[in-house]
Amino acid sequence: MSKILTFGEIMMRLQPPLNKRFLDARSFDMCFGGGEANVAVSLAEFGEDAAFFTKLPENALADACLRDLRGRGVNTSFILRGGERMGIYFCEKGVSQRPSRIVYDRKGASVNTITPDEVDCLRLLDGVRWFHFSGITPALSDAAYTALKIILKEARSRKITVSCDLNFRKNLWSVERARTVMSELMQYSDLLISNEEECKNVFGLEADGADILSGRLDTDGYIALASDIKERFKNLKAVAFTLRGSRSADINDWSGILLSDGKCYKSKEYTIRVLDRVGGGDSFSAGLIYSMLNGKALQYAVDFAVAASCLKHSVEGDFNSVSVGEVEELMNGDGSGRIKR
Amino acid sequence: MSKILTFGEIMMRLQPPLNKRFLDARSFDMCFGGGEANVAVSLAEFGEDAAFFTKLPENALADACLRDLRGRGVNTSFILRGGERMGIYFCEKGVSQRPSRIVYDRKGASVNTITPDEVDCLRLLDGVRWFHFSGITPALSDAAYTALKIILKEARSRKITVSCDLNFRKNLWSVERARTVMSELMQYSDLLISNEEECKNVFGLEADGADILSGRLDTDGYIALASDIKERFKNLKAVAFTLRGSRSADINDWSGILLSDGKCYKSKEYTIRVLDRVGGGDSFSAGLIYSMLNGKALQYAVDFAVAASCLKHSVEGDFNSVSVGEVEELMNGDGSGRIKR
Amino acid sequence: MSKILTFGEIMMRLQPPLNKRFLDARSFDMCFGGGEANVAVSLAEFGEDAAFFTKLPENALADACLRDLRGRGVNTSFILRGGERMGIYFCEKGVSQRPSRIVYDRKGASVNTITPDEVDCLRLLDGVRWFHFSGITPALSDAAYTALKIILKEARSRKITVSCDLNFRKNLWSVERARTVMSELMQYSDLLISNEEECKNVFGLEADGADILSGRLDTDGYIALASDIKERFKNLKAVAFTLRGSRSADINDWSGILLSDGKCYKSKEYTIRVLDRVGGGDSFSAGLIYSMLNGKALQYAVDFAVAASCLKHSVEGDFNSVSVGEVEELMNGDGSGRIKR
Amino acid sequence: MSKILTFGEIMMRLQPPLNKRFLDARSFDMCFGGGEANVAVSLAEFGEDAAFFTKLPENALADACLRDLRGRGVNTSFILRGGERMGIYFCEKGVSQRPSRIVYDRKGASVNTITPDEVDCLRLLDGVRWFHFSGITPALSDAAYTALKIILKEARSRKITVSCDLNFRKNLWSVERARTVMSELMQYSDLLISNEEECKNVFGLEADGADILSGRLDTDGYIALASDIKERFKNLKAVAFTLRGSRSADINDWSGILLSDGKCYKSKEYTIRVLDRVGGGDSFSAGLIYSMLNGKALQYAVDFAVAASCLKHSVEGDFNSVSVGEVEELMNGDGSGRIKR
Amino acid sequence: MSKILTFGEIMMRLQPPLNKRFLDARSFDMCFGGGEANVAVSLAEFGEDAAFFTKLPENALADACLRDLRGRGVNTSFILRGGERMGIYFCEKGVSQRPSRIVYDRKGASVNTITPDEVDCLRLLDGVRWFHFSGITPALSDAAYTALKIILKEARSRKITVSCDLNFRKNLWSVERARTVMSELMQYSDLLISNEEECKNVFGLEADGADILSGRLDTDGYIALASDIKERFKNLKAVAFTLRGSRSADINDWSGILLSDGKCYKSKEYTIRVLDRVGGGDSFSAGLIYSMLNGKALQYAVDFAVAASCLKHSVEGDFNSVSVGEVEELMNGDGSGRIKR
Amino acid sequence: MSKILTFGEIMMRLQPPLNKRFLDARSFDMCFGGGEANVAVSLAEFGEDAAFFTKLPENALADACLRDLRGRGVNTSFILRGGERMGIYFCEKGVSQRPSRIVYDRKGASVNTITPDEVDCLRLLDGVRWFHFSGITPALSDAAYTALKIILKEARSRKITVSCDLNFRKNLWSVERARTVMSELMQYSDLLISNEEECKNVFGLEADGADILSGRLDTDGYIALASDIKERFKNLKAVAFTLRGSRSADINDWSGILLSDGKCYKSKEYTIRVLDRVGGGDSFSAGLIYSMLNGKALQYAVDFAVAASCLKHSVEGDFNSVSVGEVEELMNGDGSGRIKR
Repeated sequence: MSKILTFGEIMMRLQPPLNKRFLDARSFDMCFGGGEANVAVSLAEFGEDAAFFTKLPENALADACLRDLRGRGVNTSFILRGGERMGIYFCEKGVSQRPSRIVYDRKGASVNTITPDEVDCLRLLDGVRWFHFSGITPALSDAAYTALKIILKEARSRKITVSCDLNFRKNLWSVERARTVMSELMQYSDLLISNEEECKNVFGLEADGADILSGRLDTDGYIALASDIKERFKNLKAVAFTLRGSRSADINDWSGILLSDGKCYKSKEYTIRVLDRVGGGDSFSAGLIYSMLNGKALQYAVDFAVAASCLKHSVEGDFNSVSVGEVEELMNGDGSGRIKR
Repeated sequence: MSKILTFGEIMMRLQPPLNKRFLDARSFDMCFGGGEANVAVSLAEFGEDAAFFTKLPENALADACLRDLRGRGVNTSFILRGGERMGIYFCEKGVSQRPSRIVYDRKGASVNTITPDEVDCLRLLDGVRWFHFSGITPALSDAAYTALKIILKEARSRKITVSCDLNFRKNLWSVERARTVMSELMQYSDLLISNEEECKNVFGLEADGADILSGRLDTDGYIALASDIKERFKNLKAVAFTLRGSRSADINDWSGILLSDGKCYKSKEYTIRVLDRVGGGDSFSAGLIYSMLNGKALQYAVDFAVAASCLKHSVEGDFNSVSVGEVEELMNGDGSGRIKR
Repeated sequence: MSKILTFGEIMMRLQPPLNKRFLDARSFDMCFGGGEANVAVSLAEFGEDAAFFTKLPENALADACLRDLRGRGVNTSFILRGGERMGIYFCEKGVSQRPSRIVYDRKGASVNTITPDEVDCLRLLDGVRWFHFSGITPALSDAAYTALKIILKEARSRKITVSCDLNFRKNLWSVERARTVMSELMQYSDLLISNEEECKNVFGLEADGADILSGRLDTDGYIALASDIKERFKNLKAVAFTLRGSRSADINDWSGILLSDGKCYKSKEYTIRVLDRVGGGDSFSAGLIYSMLNGKALQYAVDFAVAASCLKHSVEGDFNSVSVGEVEELMNGDGSGRIKR
Repeated sequence: MSKILTFGEIMMRLQPPLNKRFLDARSFDMCFGGGEANVAVSLAEFGEDAAFFTKLPENALADACLRDLRGRGVNTSFILRGGERMGIYFCEKGVSQRPSRIVYDRKGASVNTITPDEVDCLRLLDGVRWFHFSGITPALSDAAYTALKIILKEARSRKITVSCDLNFRKNLWSVERARTVMSELMQYSDLLISNEEECKNVFGLEADGADILSGRLDTDGYIALASDIKERFKNLKAVAFTLRGSRSADINDWSGILLSDGKCYKSKEYTIRVLDRVGGGDSFSAGLIYSMLNGKALQYAVDFAVAASCLKHSVEGDFNSVSVGEVEELMNGDGSGRIKR
Repeated sequence: MSKILTFGEIMMRLQPPLNKRFLDARSFDMCFGGGEANVAVSLAEFGEDAAFFTKLPENALADACLRDLRGRGVNTSFILRGGERMGIYFCEKGVSQRPSRIVYDRKGASVNTITPDEVDCLRLLDGVRWFHFSGITPALSDAAYTALKIILKEARSRKITVSCDLNFRKNLWSVERARTVMSELMQYSDLLISNEEECKNVFGLEADGADILSGRLDTDGYIALASDIKERFKNLKAVAFTLRGSRSADINDWSGILLSDGKCYKSKEYTIRVLDRVGGGDSFSAGLIYSMLNGKALQYAVDFAVAASCLKHSVEGDFNSVSVGEVEELMNGDGSGRIKR
Repeated sequence: MSKILTFGEIMMRLQPPLNKRFLDARSFDMCFGGGEANVAVSLAEFGEDAAFFTKLPENALADACLRDLRGRGVNTSFILRGGERMGIYFCEKGVSQRPSRIVYDRKGASVNTITPDEVDCLRLLDGVRWFHFSGITPALSDAAYTALKIILKEARSRKITVSCDLNFRKNLWSVERARTVMSELMQYSDLLISNEEECKNVFGLEADGADILSGRLDTDGYIALASDIKERFKNLKAVAFTLRGSRSADINDWSGILLSDGKCYKSKEYTIRVLDRVGGGDSFSAGLIYSMLNGKALQYAVDFAVAASCLKHSVEGDFNSVSVGEVEELMNGDGSGRIKR
C-alpha cells in the first residue's frame, strides 16, 4: 500500500544520440517514460511513497522497466504482467529552429488491453490518499478508459483526492471524443492541470488575452478561464496551468499559475536552456501533488511545481531526478547554476 | 524491374551494446533486417540486381530503413508505404554457454496488413528471373500469405525460378498450420532451403543418422531425406541444407549440402568464432541463388553459399556485406584470416 | 540521366566527438561532404533528381561514400573510380569564443586527377536542366579546372542553367588566380551565389555600408553591388548573397538576399543556435536551385533557401537532411521548435 | 525483514572500455560490486528475499549504488549512511596471456568505519534464516571485524545457517592474521566455500593430488581435505570448493565440488569463454545458498551453483543477472548457446 | 630544472557523459586535474618550461596521469611516487538552472602524506624563476602545508617570484584556519590572485559596491580593496581578481582586473557559453604568469589572462589546451567564433 | 641525445569500432603507429631512452601525435616539422575467417619528402648505441631512402649497432627494387629481423622444410637459412625470425627463433587470442634490442622478444604498452591470465 497512486502507460523511449536525426541514427539511447509513471517517479524522488499501476508484457524489456522504476523508489507491486508488448516512442531531439519530433509506436501495448477484472481496487487504493491520471490513459483504449473509471469511482467513494492532467494527444483520439470523455472524468477530479491551448482544444474554453505562442500570462484572463472551468466542472477545487514560451527548441520560457477559491497564485518565470523537455508537465504535476499533500501554502505549491519542472528541463530522460532540496534551492532564488562543491 | 525479387518483412533490430543483457542496457545498437531482405541485400552485394518487396509505414524510421537498403544497392522502388508500424526485434547477444535471446515485437507491422490489390504482379515480376521467399512470410498474417500466393502463382505462370527457405518460427504459427501452408507452397517452389531440424518439425521428415545437436553430416541419410522430400513435393528440383553445430554461443561448426538429381554436393565444414549469427541462413540462400542464377556448377554453388554464410558470422548485423571476391577467396582455401594490406 | 548535375570534390570528414579538441581526440565521428555533393544531397532530400559527378578511388572507403550518397537518393552512376585517395578534412568544432578549425588533407585526391577524356559530356548532361559548381572545383587542380570548363561549355551550348557558388578558399589558390579563373567562369554562369566578403576578396567588389562582422544588410548597398557584378559579368541573370553574423561559434545570425532584374528580395533573419554550420552555404544554394527550377517566385526562393539553410545549422554533418515540408513549416513562421508529436 | 542477510563491502567498479589498458583509458565503464553484495543480488535474481548490510557515505554516488541494488530486488533498508567515501576498484580486463589487473582504492571506505552500536542485530536478523559473509569483511578493518562478530554471535544463538566464503585477499591482511581470524570465525559457520589454493594459504591444509594450475579434481584428495577441515572446525556441516583451470584470460575451465557427511558431490566441468570472471565465486555461493535454503538435493546444489557461476562468466559486471530458469536450462544440458527466439 | 614550478594536488576527474546526473551514469569520462597542475599545463601549452611537483602512488592510474602531463609538455621529473592513492573528484555537469555538483574523494591521497624530507628544495628550485601555489595545497593536510612552507622559504631566499591563488575550499578547512594560514603565506607571495567573494570569506575584506552575483566591476571599489589587501600583506606587489557573473550553468560573464602600484587594469568582459568551467581560474593565473614572466605590460597581462581563461570555458577537462596564438587572436578582438579553415 | 634511435614513418590509424566493416562505420577509433615508431615506444615502455626520428607536418593532428609519443616517454626532440600531411591508414579488423584489411593513405606524407640537409647526423647519433630501421623506410620514397643511407653510413662509422626489420610491403615497391635496396642496406646491418616468407620474397632465400601457412619451425632448415643469409650479407652478426601460424583472424600461433654464430635459439610457442596483431613484429624487434643492449643471453633475448610480442597481441593499438616486469612474468611461465589483484 502506498500513499499516492498513478495509473497509465509507460513506454520505452528510444532517441538518436547527440541531436542526430532519425535518418542518421545507428543507435538509440534508451530510457522509460510515460505521463503518470513520470509523476510517480518524481514523487518518489521527493521522498513520497508512490505506486504506479499499469500492465506490462512478460518479457525482459518490461523486466528492465520495472527495475528502473523500483530502483527509483516507485512501488511497482501492483503492476500487471501480460499482453503482447510495451509501447515504444522514438524521440528525435530538436535544436534551434528544428523541432523535436516524436514517432509513437504504442499500438497493441499491454496497458491498452487491461480488463476490468484485472483492476483490484481494494488492493490498489488501500491506504491511498491521492490518485493521479492524465488524459492519455482514457485515450489509449476503451479497456483503459473502463479501468480508469473503475478506479475513479472507488477513489471518489473513498474521498481520495484526484488530480487530472488534461494532456490532450490528437493522435490518440478526436477532439470530440476527448471532450466527451474528459468532461465526464472531470466529475471525479479535484485538481485539473492543463495549459491554455489544451483547454481551448478539449473544452473550447480560452483565456482572453493569453498568447499561446509567447506563453505570457495575463492574470485576469486566467482567473476568468479558471472560473469558467469550475463553472462547468463543479467537482474541481483547483485548476493549474503551465505556460511555455517556446523561443526555440533550445530556449523556453516556463512558468505556472494555480487558481483556487477565486485566487490566483503565479510563479516566477524561468528562461531555460532546454536539455530535455519531455516530462516537463509531469514534473509540474508532481510538484503540485507533493506540495498539496504535505499541506504547503498554495503559493509554495506553484513555486515548487514550477521550480521542479524548470529543473526537469535540465535532466535527460522522462524522469525528473531532483530532490526536494534541489527544488527549494532554486525556488529560493539560486538559479545561477554556480558549482556546488 | 530487377532480375531477382524477394518478398517478406523487414524489421528494426535493437541490440544492447557489447554483449550486455537487456536488464543492463541503457542504449541499443540499431540496424535493419529480415529473412528475405537479407537475401536481397546479399545479392546486391554480389553485384546482382535484386529488388525487395514489403510494406512499411509512412514515418522517418521506415525512411531510414529504405535509405539503408537503397544505399546497399537494393531496388526499393516496389516497397509499399502505409499501415501503422514496422516490426522490431530486440536481440540480446549470448556469450559462451549463455544463449542469445530474441524478443520479437512484430505485431501489427505494416507488412502484415498488405492487401491483394496492393500486389501489382505485373510490375513486380516484370523481368524477374528468380523469386525468393521464406516460411516467415506466410506465417506473418493471412494477408501476407494471400499476397505471397498471388505472387507465386504469377511467378509459376512466368516460369520464374522460385526458392523457399523453410524458416520455421514456432512463435508465429503452429506446426500443423505451418505444415499445411508450407506443403501447399512447395508446389510453387523449385528449390527448398532448410535444415534437418526444420524438416522434421514442419514436414515430419528426417534424415537417418543425422545428429542435430552436433550438426554432423551423414551423406546417405541426407540423400534419402532429399529423396523423401522430392517424393512428396514433385515440383522441387533441388534441396539444400545448412548444418550448424553449436558448440557454444561463440563457436559454431557450419557446413551445407545440396541435393539434386540424386546427387549430393557437400561443402567443407568451417569452425567459426561467431560475431553475429543472425542472417546466417539467409546469406546461404543468397549464395545459392547467386551461383545458380549465374550458371555455376552445383559443387561451386554449395561451396560458395557456405563460404558466404561463414563470412556472415563475422559481420555485425543481419546483412552480409561481403563481395564475391571475398567469398571466393575463402572458398579457395584462405581461411587463415591473415591481414590484407 | 538526372535533372540536376553538380560537379566537385567529396571528402571524408573526421571530427572529434563532443566538442573535443584535436589534441584530446581518441576517436573521430565520420561523415562525408563537399560543396557540390552537399548541394546534390539537399536537392535529393527535396525530392529532386540530382546527380553528383566526381572521381573517387577504388577502395572500401570510397564505396562507403557512394553508399551514403546513393542511400540519400543522389544519382551516383556518373562517378568515376580511380586515382589514389579521397580527400579528408578534419573538423574541430568550436564553442563560444573558440572557433571551429579545419585541417584539410585533400592533396592527391582522385578528383584532382580527373582527365578531359574521363568527362563524357554527352552522357553527363543528357537531360540535365541545371548545372551547379563552386569555386572550389577549379581551385583543386588544373585537371579539375579543365574538366569543369568542358562541362560548362557543353552546358552553355545546351542552354542548361548554371549556378556558381563563389566559395573562395585561400588555402587552395591565390586571390589573383581565383580572380582570373572565376571571372572567366562567370561567363558561363546564370546565377552567382556568394557573400559580401568573398566578392570583395575575389572580385574586389564590395557593398557600401555592409558590415561583414555583424552580417547586417543594407539593401541599397547590395543592389549597387549586384549591379556592379552584373555590369562586369554580363551573362549573370541573378546574384544571391548569404549574410552571416557570427556572434560566437554557437550563435549566428543568418539571412539572405537575392538580386535580379534590379529588384532585391530579402529574407527574414534567423538567430540560430549552431549545431553544425558546415554546409550552410551549400544548403542555401540548393534551396535557390530547388525553388527556381520549380518556378517559384523569387521571394519564395530566397525565403526557402534561407529557411533550408537555417535548418542545416541544426543538422549534424555536411548534408542537410530536411524535407521541403520542414523548410516550408519554418518559412511559414513556426520557428518555435515546439515538439511535433 | 528478509530471509537471507549478507554483510560486507560494496565498491564502485571502474573499468576501461573494450579491453583497453589503464594507460590508454579516457573513460571508465562503471558498475557496483563486492563479494557479499554480489551474493545478495544473485539470490534476489533467483527470486529470494535477500538483504544486504553495509555502510555507505551520504552522497549521490552511494545513492546510485543503492538504486542499483534496489532495482535488482535487494532489500537495502538496513544499509547505514555515513562516513567519508565508498571504496573503488579499477579493473583492467585481460586478454589471452595478458592477465586482468585490479587496483583497489578502498582505504577509508565507510564500511571500514562501522561501529558496534550501528549494528542493530535485533532488526537485522529478524526473520533471517541464512547469513552469509566472506573473508573480505573481517579483513577490511577492526571495526568491520567486530561488527561481523556481533552478527555471527547473534546468528548462532538464533540458529541461523551461516555460510562463509574464505575469499583471502593478500593485500588486505597477512596470512597469519587471516588464519587466526578465519579460524575463529569458522566456529560460527555451517558451510565453508573456498578453493584449494586459499585453503592452503589460509589454513595450511591442502588436497593431495590437486593441481591448482590446471584446476583438475581428484575426488579422493578433496574428500580427505574436507575431512581435515571439518576435523579442525567442528561446527562446519559442509565444505564446497570451486575449481578454476585458467587456460588464459579468456578461456577457463570451471567446476565445483561439495562435501558433506563424508560424501562428495562433483559437478560437471565447463569450458568457458570468459566475458567477466569477477564475481564468479560469489555466484557459486549464491547458487549453493539458494539450493540448500530451498531443500534441494546436494547434487542439485553443486550442479546449480556451478551452472549459475558458469553463466556469470558471460555477464558483464560483478552481478549475476540470471534467473533460476536460465541456470536450470544449462544444468539440464543445453550449453550449446543456440538462439532463444 | 624548469623556469616555473607549481606544487599541489592532481586528481582523477570522473564525469558522467553528456550532462547526465550521477544517478543515471553507467560510465564516466575521465581526465586529470588540480589547481596547480592546471597552471603548469597551461604554461606548457604557452611554450613555457613548467614543472609540477606533487606525490602520486605507485600504480598504473598514476602512471597514466604522469603520461598525460608529460605528453602536454609538463616537466614531471620531480614528482614523488608513494603513498596509497590519488585523489578523485566526481563532477556532475550542470545545465541551465541546475548547478554542477562536485563530490570530492581526496581523503588519504598520496600528496597529503608528503614529508619534509621528500622536499628536495635544492633540486626543485634550481633555475626556477616563478613559483605558484594555491590555497588548496596548505588545506590538504599539515604535511602538505609544511612542505609548502619549506619551498616558500627557499623561494624567498632565492628571490623567486611567488604567486598565490587564494582558492578557498570550505570543505577542506574552516574559515578561521584558512585565514590564519593564508595570512601567514601572504608574506611569501608577490602576486595574489583571487575573487571578491573569497577575499571576503578568507580575509574579511570586501570591495564596496561589488555585486558578487552579477560579477560586475566597480573600479574604485576594487582599487580600495587591493589597497586594503596590500596594506595588510606588505610583501604583495600586485593583486588580481577574476569576476564571474553566473547567469546560469551555461552562460557566464567573465572578466578580470589587475591592481598594481595603485593602478587598475581592467579587461574586457566576455559572455561565455560554458562547456567546462572547471579550471577557469587556473587558466587565468597561468595567463598572468606567462605575461609577467615574459615582461608584458600589465594591461596585456590582464587581457591575456582573461582571454585565455575565456577560451578555457570552451575546452573540455581541467586543462586549458590553447596556444598563445589562439589567446592573442581572441584578445585582439576576434571572438566571433568564425571557422578557421 | 638518446641511447637508441629509430627512423621511419608514423601514421594516424583509423579503425571502425568493434569489428565493424568499413561500409558500416560512422566513426573511427584513432591511434598512431608505424614500424619504427612502435619499436621506439616499446623500448621506452621497457625503460630505455629511445628517440624516434621522422618528419611531420605543422598541424594540430601531428601535434597530437607528438604528445602521444612524448607521453609514452619517447624522445621526440629530433622530429622535423614540415611538408603537407601525415600518412593515414585505415584498419578494418577481421574476425574468424574474415581477414583484417588495411587501406593505406600515405601518399605525400611529410616523411616521404625529407631532404638530406634535414638529416643532422651529428645531433641525431650523438650518444646513440643502437639504430633501428625497417624495410618500409627506404620504400617510402627516394628521399627517405637517401636520408636513411646518410644515417646508416654515419652509424657504421661510429660503430653503432644497427638492426633492420625486413618488413616487405608489396604495395610500396616491387620485389626487384626491394631486393636491390635491402641487399645494399644489409651491409650496414648487424641484426636482421624477418620471417621466412619475406626472406623468400625479398632475397629469394628459403628454409627447407618450413611451412609458412602453419608457421611451424624446423630448426635445421632455419639454421641453414640463416647461414645462407650470412653468407650473402657478411656484415650480419645475427638473424631473427618470427613465426606466425594464422589459424584464423582471432587465433594465431606465435614463436621466434634467433640465429647467431651457427647456434639456434628457439622460443616457446604461444597460442594467442588476437586482440590486435598490428605491431606484433615491431614489439618482437624491440624485445630483441632491449635484451641485446642490456647484455642478456641470446636465449633470454628470443624468449623476451617473443613474450613481449605475444602480449602485444592483447593490447589495442600499434604500441605495445607492457613493462619488462609483465614480459618476464609471461616468460617465466605464467600465461594463465589469472587476475592480478
